[in-house]
Amino acid sequence: MSLLVVGSVAYDSVETGAGSRKDALGGSAAYSSVASSYFTRVGIVAVVGDDFRPEDLELIVSHGVDTAGLERRAGRTFRWSGVYGTEDVNTRRTLDTQLNVFADFNPVLSHRDRSQPYVFLANIDPELQISVLEQMEVRPKLVALDTMNFWIEGKGDALRRVIEQVDVLFVDEGEARELTGESNLVRAARSVMEMGPTAVVVKRGEHGALLLHGGSLFAAPALPLDTVVDPTGAGDSFAGGFMGYLAASGDLGHAAFRRAAAVGSVMGSFAVERFSLDGIAALTGGDIEERLRTLTDLTTLPPLGCGERLPMRNAP
Amino acid sequence: MSLLVVGSVAYDSVETGAGSRKDALGGSAAYSSVASSYFTRVGIVAVVGDDFRPEDLELIVSHGVDTAGLERRAGRTFRWSGVYGTEDVNTRRTLDTQLNVFADFNPVLSHRDRSQPYVFLANIDPELQISVLEQMEVRPKLVALDTMNFWIEGKGDALRRVIEQVDVLFVDEGEARELTGESNLVRAARSVMEMGPTAVVVKRGEHGALLLHGGSLFAAPALPLDTVVDPTGAGDSFAGGFMGYLAASGDLGHAAFRRAAAVGSVMGSFAVERFSLDGIAALTGGDIEERLRTLTDLTTLPPLGCGERLPMRNAP
Repeated sequence: MSLLVVGSVAYDSVETGAGSRKDALGGSAAYSSVASSYFTRVGIVAVVGDDFRPEDLELIVSHGVDTAGLERRAGRTFRWSGVYGTEDVNTRRTLDTQLNVFADFNPVLSHRDRSQPYVFLANIDPELQISVLEQMEVRPKLVALDTMNFWIEGKGDALRRVIEQVDVLFVDEGEARELTGESNLVRAARSVMEMGPTAVVVKRGEHGALLLHGGSLFAAPALPLDTVVDPTGAGDSFAGGFMGYLAASGDLGHAAFRRAAAVGSVMGSFAVERFSLDGIAALTGGDIEERLRTLTDLTTLPPLGCGERLPMRNAP
Repeated sequence: MSLLVVGSVAYDSVETGAGSRKDALGGSAAYSSVASSYFTRVGIVAVVGDDFRPEDLELIVSHGVDTAGLERRAGRTFRWSGVYGTEDVNTRRTLDTQLNVFADFNPVLSHRDRSQPYVFLANIDPELQISVLEQMEVRPKLVALDTMNFWIEGKGDALRRVIEQVDVLFVDEGEARELTGESNLVRAARSVMEMGPTAVVVKRGEHGALLLHGGSLFAAPALPLDTVVDPTGAGDSFAGGFMGYLAASGDLGHAAFRRAAAVGSVMGSFAVERFSLDGIAALTGGDIEERLRTLTDLTTLPPLGCGERLPMRNAP
């Protein structure tokens, strides 16, 4: 294994314009580990309750995900429920959050976990994210972090301390603005980079993602989809594809980061086409490559060659 | 001249997070004719009042725009005023609209206007747009149309009749949904194409534009900007760049449409950086080409070659 994912495994109940699901497998570690499993060996550190269904464990294991770090505790699995807008599928309202066994989650890394070269710290308490990094015996090649407004507001100091230590930060537009106090997105993203990360991925939902890396800006498009069934897990699937691709390629150059963002966008697009993990659970390499080609074609622009001029009337 | 623009010339009073302007030159025909003037010979058909300032006429004329069709009537020039959100610059509230001389606008084309090969029908009453097309003596090579929710709601039948006759339709996301009753953007855009146009450009503000043309989908990015001073006229500047480039290139193939959308996005990005037409009034060909290269780099993705595989763990 080469990618370590630390995050949540949850049962989600969602209602969208396309229907509803109750207690379906979800959580940041579930989505991101399965999305990354197509590219690289991955292990998860998370916690579930004694109500966790064998078939859900089997789904994760069947993707080759190492679940030795998936702790099982007495009590109920973390539950989240929410409703998405029927007109604007990007808006969602949380109905209920029950932390259950997740309330006492305290990730303890195994000997093997402590030397993984790629680490994805999915959205959990920033103090736990710091604790994970402190347990690493070897500085990983690449650490990526996800977070949410809840921690920006409640644990801003701890969050800033962990942001200082990571290479890649995933944020959405609102989080970038809240974290930096900058309403302009470009300035907010630059301000995030000054906090430490060498790459920032600003997630924009159906508008794709903006990658800042190596002094360069890349706009990864989102595939315009005929059908969006359930946006839950899109960001985690993006992060899983992104980290999985980087871990598999072993390349941390700028072109690899661009392609990682495109692969992330592809995995996010699969995720939202079905409920729960259904959209990313049964893909082939060919499915992923075909969609990556579609995504590339979507933004391919005949470049204006060096010295080539546009047809102009005359300079006014 | 090769591009005919029919639309409004107005005095706009706007308030944005960056400041405010009172009675500044604006209107769809002003923005789009000046934006297109860098690429092609353009003439406008519009109406102004006897309060129209000589320096505003001079600004338009200095770009080589043929103003023989700019009628001057007794009365006041069309006035619009609005306020943009300071947090979300994409939201705007109209404070006041005074049609003034524009209320009786009835475009009458000159002999020369009637044989122009490229026509942009900017946002006006769809019955007037139909009247313009009826006056054409030769079927233009390309007719593009812009509209707004006001006409979708108030003159839907006339609007549908003109949409049937045009080649390119510019709409924003909300308009595409309202026009078709489809909440999904891709299905809405396809449904618009079934009404007649061979190309649809869905404008998404700071998220760029989606071009549907020739069975292919192109996502033209918007340049992420450090500073957005005034979004007024962004869509008209986009349309002007788009049509100006197509008229200048004489090419109506798919690659030309993609580049036209990119040139449109470039002109829109210049427009929003300053108030009124200030952002697009003093450009050089080099400024436009440089920004087009930046825009191209923003989405350049190393393509996955035919037969090339992504690094995969193994098929699950």
